[in-house]
Formats: sequence, C-alpha cells, structure tokens
Amino acid sequence: MRKGKLYGVGIGCGDPELLTVKATKILKSADIIICPYKENKNSFALEIAKDYINKKAQILRLLFPMTYEHEELQKRWEENALLIAQKVKEGNVVAFITLGDPTVYSTYMYIMPFIKKQNIEVETIPGVTSFCSVASSVNTPISKWEENFCIVPLRKGVDNNLSSALDNFDNIIVMKPSNNCVQLAEELIKRNLENNFVLVSKCGTSEEEVIRDIEVIKSKKIPYFSTMLIKKKINI
Amino acid sequence: MRKGKLYGVGIGCGDPELLTVKATKILKSADIIICPYKENKNSFALEIAKDYINKKAQILRLLFPMTYEHEELQKRWEENALLIAQKVKEGNVVAFITLGDPTVYSTYMYIMPFIKKQNIEVETIPGVTSFCSVASSVNTPISKWEENFCIVPLRKGVDNNLSSALDNFDNIIVMKPSNNCVQLAEELIKRNLENNFVLVSKCGTSEEEVIRDIEVIKSKKIPYFSTMLIKKKINI
Repeated sequence: MRKGKLYGVGIGCGDPELLTVKATKILKSADIIICPYKENKNSFALEIAKDYINKKAQILRLLFPMTYEHEELQKRWEENALLIAQKVKEGNVVAFITLGDPTVYSTYMYIMPFIKKQNIEVETIPGVTSFCSVASSVNTPISKWEENFCIVPLRKGVDNNLSSALDNFDNIIVMKPSNNCVQLAEELIKRNLENNFVLVSKCGTSEEEVIRDIEVIKSKKIPYFSTMLIKKKINI
Repeated sequence: MRKGKLYGVGIGCGDPELLTVKATKILKSADIIICPYKENKNSFALEIAKDYINKKAQILRLLFPMTYEHEELQKRWEENALLIAQKVKEGNVVAFITLGDPTVYSTYMYIMPFIKKQNIEVETIPGVTSFCSVASSVNTPISKWEENFCIVPLRKGVDNNLSSALDNFDNIIVMKPSNNCVQLAEELIKRNLENNFVLVSKCGTSEEEVIRDIEVIKSKKIPYFSTMLIKKKINI
C-alpha cells in the first residue's frame, strides 16, 4: 500500500496563478481534496484551485460551523481530524486546501492538535497571504527599513485591538474588515487617516475592487473577502 | 517596438518550488533580470530563481549598498530606478527579483517612489514570506481565531521595539534575529519564553536548520537568513 500523507496547502487569496509550483504539484497528485466550508457558503478556495486538481480526485467537503460555541467547535474539529487521519492511514494523499497561507487564520490549523496525536505524515505548504496580495496590487510596501507592522483581525462588536494597533504601529493590516465597518471608519476619521488606507476585495480575481473612499467603508458596503492596509505615515 | 514593463517578483525564501506559477512565467519571458546585491554577498535570490530564468535573459546586478547614510542611499536608489526605467522604455520586460514578498522589507520597494515618476508600467507579484514558510515548516499556526500578530525587524544596538512587541502581542515574528542575538536571548529568558520560540534558518533549502535551544541563540550562532516565531501562550 502507498504511504498516505496529509498536506495543508495554501492557495493564495484569489488569482489561480498565485498558487506555488509546489501547491500545483500536490493538487495534481492528491487522491482526496479536503475543502472546508461554512453553512450556506460556496467554497471560494475550490474555485481558485479547481484547474490544478486531478480529475480523478475525490472532493471531500467538511463542515466547519460558524459558531463561537467552544465545545461544539472542538467536537467538530476532532471529528474532521479523525476522518482525515483515517483517509491518510488508508494510503491516500490528502490535500487540505486553505485560502491565503495555512499558518495565518486558517481552518486547517484548528485540526492540527488532533492530527498530531494520530501519528500520520503531515506537511504544510505555505501560500501567498491576502495582505501581501493587496499591497502588491497597489505597488505599495507594507513595511520598509526598520518599521514594524501588525495584523489585526477585526471582531464583531467593540474591538480594542484595532485602537491599540493604531496607537502603536505605523503599518496595520486589518483582516475581515467587513466584521465591523462602522467602528473601522470611525477610528480612521478620528485619527485623520481618511487618506492613509486602501481596502481591496477579492484581490486577484475578476471581481477585484480597490476602495479608498471612507464613505464606502462607513456605509458598510464591503464584501466579505476584503483586507485593509493602513499606513499612518503616508497617503496611499 | 514591444511595450516594456517592470515586474517586482517575490520568489519566496529558499525553496524554488515556492515560487508562484505567475512568478515562473514572468522569469521565463523577461528580457532582463534585476538582481540586487550588497557588497561582498552572493545573490541568494538568484540562486533560488535560476532554474526558471530564460537562458537568453540578461542578468543585471545592481548595487544596493549596506549603509544607513540617507543621502547616499537616496542617490543610489534613484540611479538604480532611472537605469531600470530606461531599460523598460527601450521595450524590455524587466523582472526585479526579491526574496520573500516584495511588499515586506524588500529592496525593490526603495526604488518605487522614483519609478512612479517615470510613468512606466509596473506590476508587483506577491510571494511567500519567510515567516509563513518558517511556521509551515514546523506545522504551527502564526495566528488563530481572533489573535493578533506583529512583525518586528531586529535592529543592531538596543531595540525597544522587540520589548514592546513582547509586552503587547501573543504572537511575534522577529525578522533578522542575527542582528542582535544577545538582546533577543535575554528578552526570552527574562520572560520565561525559552520554550516558546522556534528559529528557522535558510528555510526550504538543503541547509535548513531549526533551532529551539536558547543556548544557541545566546551564543550568536544564528545564520543571516533566519526568522524567529515566538508564541507566548504555547510551547513550540
């Protein structure tokens, strides 16, 4: 029997040409593609990766529910991990596709603690993050020289992380800005940063949209797949 | 005459298979490859990318001196930018290769303000960052759920940025740790974080080295191409 293996494969945030050579080779050779999904959502990851996937591969959609309920999540992550480990133990090469990079806010990493107990071979293939894609699309550095930068996922409800990041960093990446557009717009206005941000949605796809107008942020018209770059010291 | 264009191309941090499909296509079609170098250093970027580069392409090595002298740097960046713009205006496709991602601490971005004045076509191709590669190589998330993370380039001399990052973040990436190993080790020991870091050198190459021993950090035996991930809340 062929020895199975699990790959966590970063596929970038939208442009199929931004998969790495290594990612495309794994997708071509995998027996099973794991495609995480949330209720009522199509898989954007599958859409990006589809042309590289072996026609004979089985696509296995696994539910990762949208809930903050800790016990339910743990239970589901463990179930999903055991199912994947079983497939690997049966001799399958399994590729778990993940938007952007697998080490940055990916669903794949939630199953990792359970996978590690299963004693199967695992390899994680890094990918291009959304924030690097966004900054590249506007030919602007995230960070130069000895500057720092930080990455803040925006939460629903009031979020002190954002405000603290804006206090302490010159370069800030806001992930999931659609979670709390109003607070985000207010913070930018309060700090006179209306001309110091760029938001890009569905970067690298035919639906890519570049937003620099604070009124659009305020009016909550931001798609889900968006990332914002804020540069306090320069207008962008 | 063919219309020239400048590409800034991220090529990842070591493994040639971590170039994106788009990067390989550009390297295959470019007339001129710009390869930045510092005094007395071979080009690691060229070593990574070499198999994708068109045999007929001209390799143009441009000096980006290692100095903090502002005027000298500005002068050199402008000269380099003008030379590149000239090549593009002559109808060449020019690819400026850059380690990791072009928007994260790259030499390419230093010439961008001068390039923008030249009215030539520019496209930046994102790449896999060293920190994503390092975290992937140890199958460990940089950041999960609603956690933040920050990226701090370590400076020579005393560096308050590191200490502030360790105060305020659970997940910290230290770039260029070899700049100040002693301070880095002292900070980790002071905060009881001897088991909460991993440092990877030349990630993705045959010389890759994974260091988890604080004594090695203390003794300054860290190669130049290294990145450290610190996770305050979990042992890694």
